[in-house]
Amino acid sequence: MGSILENISGPDDVKSLPVGDLPVLAKEIREEMIRVLSGIGGHFGGGLGVVELTLALHRVFDTTRDRIVWDVGHQAYPHKMLTGRLGALPTIRQWNGLCGFPKREESPHDAFSAGHAGTSVSAALGMAEARDVLGDSYHVIAVIGDGSLTAGMAMEALNQAGARKKKLLVILNDNNLSISENVGALSSYLARISADPMIDEMKRKTGAILRDIPVIGDQVARFARVAHGQMVGMISPPGQWFEEMGLSYVGPLDGHDLPLLIETLSALKDRPGPVLLHVRTVKGKGYEPAEKSPIAFHGVGPFDPETGIFKKKSGGPPAYTKVFGQAMIELAREIPELFAITAAMPEGTGLSDFAKLFPERFVDVGIAEQHAVTLAGGMAAQGLRPVAAIYSTFLQRAYDQVVHDICLQNLPVLFALDRGGLVGEDGPTHHGVFDIAYLRHIPNLVLMAPKDENELRKMLWTALHLPGPAAIRYPRGEALGVPLDSGFTAIPVGKAEMLRDGHDLVFLAYGSMVSVAMESARLLQEEGIEAGVVNMRFAKPLDTELLTEICRQAPLLVTVEEGVVMGGFGSAVLEFLAASDLLSRVRVRQAGIPDHYVEHGAPGILRDSVGLTAPKLAELARKSLHSPVS
Amino acid sequence: MGSILENISGPDDVKSLPVGDLPVLAKEIREEMIRVLSGIGGHFGGGLGVVELTLALHRVFDTTRDRIVWDVGHQAYPHKMLTGRLGALPTIRQWNGLCGFPKREESPHDAFSAGHAGTSVSAALGMAEARDVLGDSYHVIAVIGDGSLTAGMAMEALNQAGARKKKLLVILNDNNLSISENVGALSSYLARISADPMIDEMKRKTGAILRDIPVIGDQVARFARVAHGQMVGMISPPGQWFEEMGLSYVGPLDGHDLPLLIETLSALKDRPGPVLLHVRTVKGKGYEPAEKSPIAFHGVGPFDPETGIFKKKSGGPPAYTKVFGQAMIELAREIPELFAITAAMPEGTGLSDFAKLFPERFVDVGIAEQHAVTLAGGMAAQGLRPVAAIYSTFLQRAYDQVVHDICLQNLPVLFALDRGGLVGEDGPTHHGVFDIAYLRHIPNLVLMAPKDENELRKMLWTALHLPGPAAIRYPRGEALGVPLDSGFTAIPVGKAEMLRDGHDLVFLAYGSMVSVAMESARLLQEEGIEAGVVNMRFAKPLDTELLTEICRQAPLLVTVEEGVVMGGFGSAVLEFLAASDLLSRVRVRQAGIPDHYVEHGAPGILRDSVGLTAPKLAELARKSLHSPVS
Repeated sequence: MGSILENISGPDDVKSLPVGDLPVLAKEIREEMIRVLSGIGGHFGGGLGVVELTLALHRVFDTTRDRIVWDVGHQAYPHKMLTGRLGALPTIRQWNGLCGFPKREESPHDAFSAGHAGTSVSAALGMAEARDVLGDSYHVIAVIGDGSLTAGMAMEALNQAGARKKKLLVILNDNNLSISENVGALSSYLARISADPMIDEMKRKTGAILRDIPVIGDQVARFARVAHGQMVGMISPPGQWFEEMGLSYVGPLDGHDLPLLIETLSALKDRPGPVLLHVRTVKGKGYEPAEKSPIAFHGVGPFDPETGIFKKKSGGPPAYTKVFGQAMIELAREIPELFAITAAMPEGTGLSDFAKLFPERFVDVGIAEQHAVTLAGGMAAQGLRPVAAIYSTFLQRAYDQVVHDICLQNLPVLFALDRGGLVGEDGPTHHGVFDIAYLRHIPNLVLMAPKDENELRKMLWTALHLPGPAAIRYPRGEALGVPLDSGFTAIPVGKAEMLRDGHDLVFLAYGSMVSVAMESARLLQEEGIEAGVVNMRFAKPLDTELLTEICRQAPLLVTVEEGVVMGGFGSAVLEFLAASDLLSRVRVRQAGIPDHYVEHGAPGILRDSVGLTAPKLAELARKSLHSPVS
Repeated sequence: MGSILENISGPDDVKSLPVGDLPVLAKEIREEMIRVLSGIGGHFGGGLGVVELTLALHRVFDTTRDRIVWDVGHQAYPHKMLTGRLGALPTIRQWNGLCGFPKREESPHDAFSAGHAGTSVSAALGMAEARDVLGDSYHVIAVIGDGSLTAGMAMEALNQAGARKKKLLVILNDNNLSISENVGALSSYLARISADPMIDEMKRKTGAILRDIPVIGDQVARFARVAHGQMVGMISPPGQWFEEMGLSYVGPLDGHDLPLLIETLSALKDRPGPVLLHVRTVKGKGYEPAEKSPIAFHGVGPFDPETGIFKKKSGGPPAYTKVFGQAMIELAREIPELFAITAAMPEGTGLSDFAKLFPERFVDVGIAEQHAVTLAGGMAAQGLRPVAAIYSTFLQRAYDQVVHDICLQNLPVLFALDRGGLVGEDGPTHHGVFDIAYLRHIPNLVLMAPKDENELRKMLWTALHLPGPAAIRYPRGEALGVPLDSGFTAIPVGKAEMLRDGHDLVFLAYGSMVSVAMESARLLQEEGIEAGVVNMRFAKPLDTELLTEICRQAPLLVTVEEGVVMGGFGSAVLEFLAASDLLSRVRVRQAGIPDHYVEHGAPGILRDSVGLTAPKLAELARKSLHSPVS
């Protein structure tokens, strides 16, 4: 660790440093990030890109009272390092360690927890409202990336911030990237206003103008910028789009020019009304491999700091994501109407190769899940078979569209929900544990989850031949390594698969929990308990025939799902058994995520913490068998 | 009915009319709307405002193949009247009658079903994608109001349409109104570009330019408009905001100038790429009372067509909405931190008076539920007690924000969910039947529903003193007419109320169903069946103590809720009883909304259709008591 950085115990130390030391500190922050994260992995490029911005913010503002709201928050590592959490950086994203995102409970310097994109302006505006109602005077700053601007809620918030006129600073951290390539017309717009060479010339002058007239306020500064714009023959001054939304636009500034940032932030600090400061940064700044491959270095596993080469795990089964991506390519060859949609996750959902092979049948809509879903609805209404590949946690954004635009019209849209279940290190904002519960009650929707990657292929094929909508959930990470069939076959809708008989109890397992239940049954057998296992396959419609039969065979049913217990797959079983008066025959236990948010950490630790491992399931079964019936 | 209108059996008849007859037809459509809707009520002002636009669209396009996507769709009555549904207009919004919104199953001329705002551009873009992939050549038109533009998903869609460059016509129907006054900076922007007198002068010329150069395309027309804009000394040409989003902007046009509309639509018909046509209309056009009071005439009950005076029902209990609005005013006096948020529904949520009395503690964010919720989160993080008053069906839009921004941080935001349950005539897009199921599985959230309006007051008080988030659902329409306490008292969290003992069965009733269950218990008593009734009050946390006790008293429990059965309150009861091994003692039946979308119609008919009336509950109880246990 560098000698300046190691003496930074909080933002006050940043403020008291000689100005000349700041570039050294910036360099040391980057070195420490590279050193630590090359060993343990984590979000990487975003943080490197905002080192100067973070230093400038802590130089100008006081986060014990001023509120900085980091959008998404994967770029907040330097902020954490400067606010008392430097020593804990090696624990980041690990069980009981630092969270990979801002988190209110973790530090008074974290104003608002985050994880999903586009929330910062709304939260910051709420804080500005609170400040004014309660007679306070602190500053509120939202830092939002250009990728997050594609999220509708960010635009809702800007539209309202512009009208509401509360004092608020929105910093647009424009690196021309989402996690993947950025999309949407606004993205080109930002590139256009940033690329104009005249603007580059103007930027220091703009800074100067602003410093001279902060109290005269909006109109003069605006006029100055407008005059500049007309002088250089532009159709409209840079940032006009934001000005029309009611925000004063300042920029674009070089986001790595520390003195300029400090100067500008100081000048803007006491300006009334909502201001948008447009800052251009380079994702991965200061680490050449990351600057060259910003998508690969958005979030990383361990890598060699010297070369930037990732430490590959050798062999092992393919990821579910990869099996999905490959299957989609094969399916596209069989089904000419197939169309693939991603919301800013072409790599994450495994669709990059599909996109190259079938560019006219692929679209990345940006961080815009609501639009993605209704777009799919329009496609399906006109004869396409759209597959909306969206992480379980991000489809939460489009719950209404699934209810209102897809299922109400019974349109044949397929939702491919990657990252169903506990995702591990990203933690509570990213666990895909609610989808079974938030989708199950929607009429017309078929819900399935495969026990392995070969069944995923079958389910994709099955779903694409249904007359209505369906959702398939599958977990993050490695699949089981089973052989893959060539070609596709369908499985009967609503039919479960009895994998193992057992007269003491039966595990009714869903998706990723099938293999865990099988292992648990083996453990129980060792102690003489015969546990059956059903691969339920469908949370909806349920295989009621098989369920009825099983109630006559075993006195205990244990439902197992990697999702919330409340309202989940197990509750579907209970609802059926209650309506059929079968509950006097059997006892039912529901294994799944209990009613609290699950923290971040290695998936194995998390599954153990909620009882979703083979030994924990065995323990539950054992205890249930021995507990007296009341 | 007018003599031209009565001979219109479909759009072909509109196309073959002499041009001179069109204004007469427009007049006759309005007269028929006034005649019919003054008798039965319905959405009113929106339709009157788009009569000319609808005629022009059907004159220029062919809706047997071209696709018109009406946003929200309450303005589609004239469209329905011109597409074979004229005679059925008197059945609109009634059981088995026409739907109040576009509906695919109702007519091949309805391209996409709607109800919630902001979906049209996404759906239309999806259709344009489908058209191009499948090698078709039809036209796709989205008609979206300026109010709907405040919805984030509409902005997501515009941003993507502008980048995707598919041929697509977006008609912005700008009447400067949402259901209520429009809000947001964009709204002022639209007013500003429309109010410019020079634009008014230009509009026919713009039309002419466009007609002359349709094939030369974008660049020339854009240059022409830009030149005009600079000539008249504007900072940017009108519509620059949309141009920056990648759409060619045309307008603003007078939306009641039929020849100009036909001319412009014809000129735009074969233009490549995405075009935004900005049309200015007057909501309620042609009916003076509606033009003067567009908010009151957005959706109407029966009124006197001569005077525009609404037929008031005399006396009767107050609406829940009104009790809520009045309570909020009293609460604001007691709790200085109270802040009220509505998403474009100040009248609908009963907050208009609050807004007048406490303007600095109230905000209408527009149709922007996602932003509303996270805004509330920001407020709560900084010490306010925000109440987000959002209809049950519209909070669906903000499911992710409730999970990710409020409950994960355990922030004390209160969701006041009006229109919980079946709303009646607005139908499946508006029924508030999912909220219990989509909220119950979210950790930290307390869920309650009052049995009557006095309990609503108590619950508001209770919720506003909790350390974390809560949601209170209450139904649309009249409350029960019980006396209201002065002042507020709290009720213990998680405590149910035994209203009536009964050893044959017990109704576990939630919210609006408590009074129905009481009535059902009286009916059952007449035939010698003793049914108990519990006012459960809380779907979460459940009163597990009382439930445990009740299982020892009666052999049958019937859960009753005005919400979906799957994953709802009844399932919460099942989950608890299963985990506690109490299910061998009792049988459980779940009364609630079955697994299909409920159509539109009078609330009484709808409740009967799903078994949620006193006689139907009695029937269920009777049958369950007599059915053999398997």
